[in-house]
Amino acid sequence: MTTETNLAHTSRLYDSASPPLVPFSAARGDLAEGRDSPRALLERCIQTIEGRDASVQAFVVTDLPAARAAADAATARWKESRPLSPVDGMPIGIKDIIETRDLPTAMNNPIYHGWDARRDAACVLALRHAGAVFVGKTVTAEFACGESGPTTNPHDAARTPGGSSRGSAAAVGAGMVSAALATQTQASTIRPASYCGAYGFKPSLHALHIGGINPLAPTQDHLGIIAASLADAWAVARVISGGVGGMPPHPGLQGPMELPEPRRPGAVIGLRTRGWSETDDESKAAYDDALARLGAAGVTILTPENDPDADALETELADANEVSMDIFAYEIAWPLRAYLGQGEERVGTRIRELIEHGGRMSRADYQRALGRRDALRTRVNACASRVDGFVALASSGPAIEGHAYSGSRSYALPWTMVAGPSLSLPLLSAADLPLGLQVMGYRDRDAEAVAVAAWIERALRG
Amino acid sequence: MTTETNLAHTSRLYDSASPPLVPFSAARGDLAEGRDSPRALLERCIQTIEGRDASVQAFVVTDLPAARAAADAATARWKESRPLSPVDGMPIGIKDIIETRDLPTAMNNPIYHGWDARRDAACVLALRHAGAVFVGKTVTAEFACGESGPTTNPHDAARTPGGSSRGSAAAVGAGMVSAALATQTQASTIRPASYCGAYGFKPSLHALHIGGINPLAPTQDHLGIIAASLADAWAVARVISGGVGGMPPHPGLQGPMELPEPRRPGAVIGLRTRGWSETDDESKAAYDDALARLGAAGVTILTPENDPDADALETELADANEVSMDIFAYEIAWPLRAYLGQGEERVGTRIRELIEHGGRMSRADYQRALGRRDALRTRVNACASRVDGFVALASSGPAIEGHAYSGSRSYALPWTMVAGPSLSLPLLSAADLPLGLQVMGYRDRDAEAVAVAAWIERALRG
Repeated sequence: MTTETNLAHTSRLYDSASPPLVPFSAARGDLAEGRDSPRALLERCIQTIEGRDASVQAFVVTDLPAARAAADAATARWKESRPLSPVDGMPIGIKDIIETRDLPTAMNNPIYHGWDARRDAACVLALRHAGAVFVGKTVTAEFACGESGPTTNPHDAARTPGGSSRGSAAAVGAGMVSAALATQTQASTIRPASYCGAYGFKPSLHALHIGGINPLAPTQDHLGIIAASLADAWAVARVISGGVGGMPPHPGLQGPMELPEPRRPGAVIGLRTRGWSETDDESKAAYDDALARLGAAGVTILTPENDPDADALETELADANEVSMDIFAYEIAWPLRAYLGQGEERVGTRIRELIEHGGRMSRADYQRALGRRDALRTRVNACASRVDGFVALASSGPAIEGHAYSGSRSYALPWTMVAGPSLSLPLLSAADLPLGLQVMGYRDRDAEAVAVAAWIERALRG
Repeated sequence: MTTETNLAHTSRLYDSASPPLVPFSAARGDLAEGRDSPRALLERCIQTIEGRDASVQAFVVTDLPAARAAADAATARWKESRPLSPVDGMPIGIKDIIETRDLPTAMNNPIYHGWDARRDAACVLALRHAGAVFVGKTVTAEFACGESGPTTNPHDAARTPGGSSRGSAAAVGAGMVSAALATQTQASTIRPASYCGAYGFKPSLHALHIGGINPLAPTQDHLGIIAASLADAWAVARVISGGVGGMPPHPGLQGPMELPEPRRPGAVIGLRTRGWSETDDESKAAYDDALARLGAAGVTILTPENDPDADALETELADANEVSMDIFAYEIAWPLRAYLGQGEERVGTRIRELIEHGGRMSRADYQRALGRRDALRTRVNACASRVDGFVALASSGPAIEGHAYSGSRSYALPWTMVAGPSLSLPLLSAADLPLGLQVMGYRDRDAEAVAVAAWIERALRG
C-alpha cells in the first residue's frame, strides 16, 4: 500500500491554503479497523460543503438525509467486515446530465427544471449497488456544452473550475466528496480536473457504460471520473465496469479491482499539442521539469526533436481542434435542435452557435472529419511497439480568471479523439495554482495506462 | 407512378371485411390538385379511430386538436403547392417508447406513467420539421420487451397484433394512420407488420438516428417504420434520414427521396429459417407459391437444395434464436435492472426472466454470441457477388390467437442480427388473414433492397 500512503501524504498539493482532497481508498485501512467510518467521513464532507459551497457552488442539489442513510448502511457493513466493494461508503457527486432516480436531472437548462428521469443511469446503478454514498448532483455546463453555470474554482473563486464537469471537479477539488462522475466529449473531465487540483480519469471510449447520460456526440461521449486519488478514480471506474460493463458491444474496462501496480514505462512520447502556443511560461517550465525528472528516473522521453514517431504524431494533431469541433457540432444536431425547437430563448448562445456550425456541414464534411480522426488513431497505434505511454499538460496553464470561458480544450481533446485512456494528475503547479500532468495510453489498455500513471506519480512526488 | 397506383389499387388485401389501409404517397396527386387535403385525410383517419379503437386499442393517447392544427398547416402548404416534404400532412403514430415533447412517453410501465421526456426523439424531430401530422402515441409492449398491452389485431380482435410495436402495426393495419414509428431489437417491426397486414420496413442498423428511443440492446436497436404502402415506408425513413441522419457515426440512409424504381433481382435466396418448423401448411404453401411465381417471372430462386451459399446460410441460422436472445438478454441489463430496483412488482415477469437470463451469462458468453453474429454477417456478405436479395416469411403464419404471446420471432430476428434492411410486404394470406412476405438486403444498401421489394410486390400483385 505504498502508493496509497503516498497519495494520502501528498494530497495537499500547494500551500496550506490549498483545500485538502478527501481520498477514500487511502482511508480503507482505517475503515476496516474501525478508526474511521463512512458516516464520519461523510460528515467531514458535509462540513466542507456547508463551509464552502456557498462560494464554490459545486452542487445543484444535495440529498443529505439519503446520503447519511447510505453512509450508515455502509458503516454497518464495514463494521461487520463485509463491505460490498472498494467504493462501499465512498461519498460521490454526480454530474447533472447523468440520470438519477431519486434526484432531478436538470442539465443546467430551464427545459429540464426539476426533471425526473425515473431511473438511474447505468453508472449510477452500478455504484448504488456497490454501496456508494451519493451526496448530490453537481453543476454541469448547460447540456454539457453551453452556458457555464455558477461554480467557481475551489482554489480561487475568481477563476473558472473549467467545464463542462465543473461541479464535479470543484466538489472533489474542494474536498466535498472523494469522487464525482463526469463526462468528456472534448475536454470536460481532464480540463476541470487540472484546474481544480483533482485526479481526472477518462477511460477508453465506451469502456464504461454511458446509458442514461444525456448524449452529446455519440462517437466521443465518454464517462469520466474525477477523484481525490488515482486509487479512487480507478476504484470507481472498475466498480462501474464490474457492475454494468461497457457500452455494448464494448465488454467493459478490464483489470484488477484495486489500483494496478505502478509500472515504469520504458519510453513515453512527450507531446506539446496545439495547446503549447497558448501556455504560459511557468506552466511550460513545470511540464519540461516533469519530463526532465522522468528522464532522470530512467524513462526515455521521445519528442518531435528526437523521434520521428513523436514528430509524426504532433503533425497529425495539428488540426485536431478543428476536426474535433466538426465531429462534435455535426453529431450534436440531435438532441440540441430538439431543445432549440422549444423556444430559442431557452437555450444559450453557445448552443445556438454549435447548431449553426453543424448546420453548415455536409455529410461529406462529417465523413472527412471522421477520416481525420481515424488517421490520428492509426498514428497513435503505430507507436505501440516501442512507446509505453504519452504525456502532455492537461490544460494550457492553471485555471484562468473569470467564469464565462472554461478554458482551452487543446490539451484534452486529442485523447478524446484517440478514444484511449487519459488521466490528469495534480502533480504540477503554476501561479501557486494546481496544474495537471496528463498521462495517456492505448485504447482499451486502461489498466496499463493507469499503472504507468501510478508510477509517474510516485516518481514525481519523489 | 405505376407503383403508386398499384399500391392504392391493391391495398385491400383480402375480402371486403379486411380493413383498408390509408396510403399517403398514393394520395399526393390528389393533394397537389386539391381533390384531397391533409385535413380531410386526417378526418377520415379520426373517423376510423373513433369507430374502431375501442376494440383495437392501438393508441395510448391521441392529441387530435394538435393533429388537426398540424393537418391544417399542411393543407395550407399543399394549397400553395409548397409541401415541406414527401410526408407533409401524413398522419403518423408514434410508438410509446419514443420520446415526444408534447405527449407523455409511458413505455407501458407504471414507472413512466405520465412521463415527460421534454424533447422529441431524433426521428420525431425530423418528421415534425417535415410537416408530419402526429396523431398520438401507440401501444408498446412494456419497455418493448415485457408484458404485451391491450392492443388487438385489426383483422380479428381475438388475435394478437404481434409485438412489441403492436399499437403501431394495428393503427396502420386498421387504417387509422398512414404510417407509424416502430422499433425492432428482435422482431418488433416485421412480425407485427405481418400480423396486421401492413408494410414493415426495418432499415439497416443505425441508418436512422435512434436518439430519444428508450434503449434495449444497443447493438440491435433499430428504428422501424410500419406503413400503408412501400412508398410511405420509404418516404418516412428517407425524411428521417434527411433530417437527422443516421446514428453517429452512421451517415444515414441513402437513396432518392421518392420510392426507388422497382428493380428485378437476378437471383434471390429463399430462406426457411428456424421458423419453418413452426409454420402451418397453408402459410408454407403461400410462401412456396410466391417463390414459384417469382421464379416464373424470371428470378433465380436459390435454396439449400440447389445452392451451397443458401445451404450455408441456413446452417448458419440454426442457432440464431439462441444467439440473438443471449445478446439481447446481456445488453438489456441496463436499463432493465434500473427499473427492477424500483420494486419488483413494478416490472412484469418476462422482464424479470430476461434479467435473470442476462445475469447467468458471463462476459465470455456474450462475446461468443457476438462472434456468432459476426459469422452470420460474414456469411451473408459472402453472397453479395451473385445474390441480389433474400426472401422469407415475415412470421410463422398469420396472427396467432390470444393476446398474452406475441408470436414467434424466428423469421424476423435473423435480419435484425444481420443488421441489413428487411421489409414485410402484405402480399400473402393464410386462414383469410394477412401474412407478410419478408424481403431482405445487404447492410447499408437499403435503397437497393427497397427497389427489389417494389419489384417483387409488382410481380406478385400481378
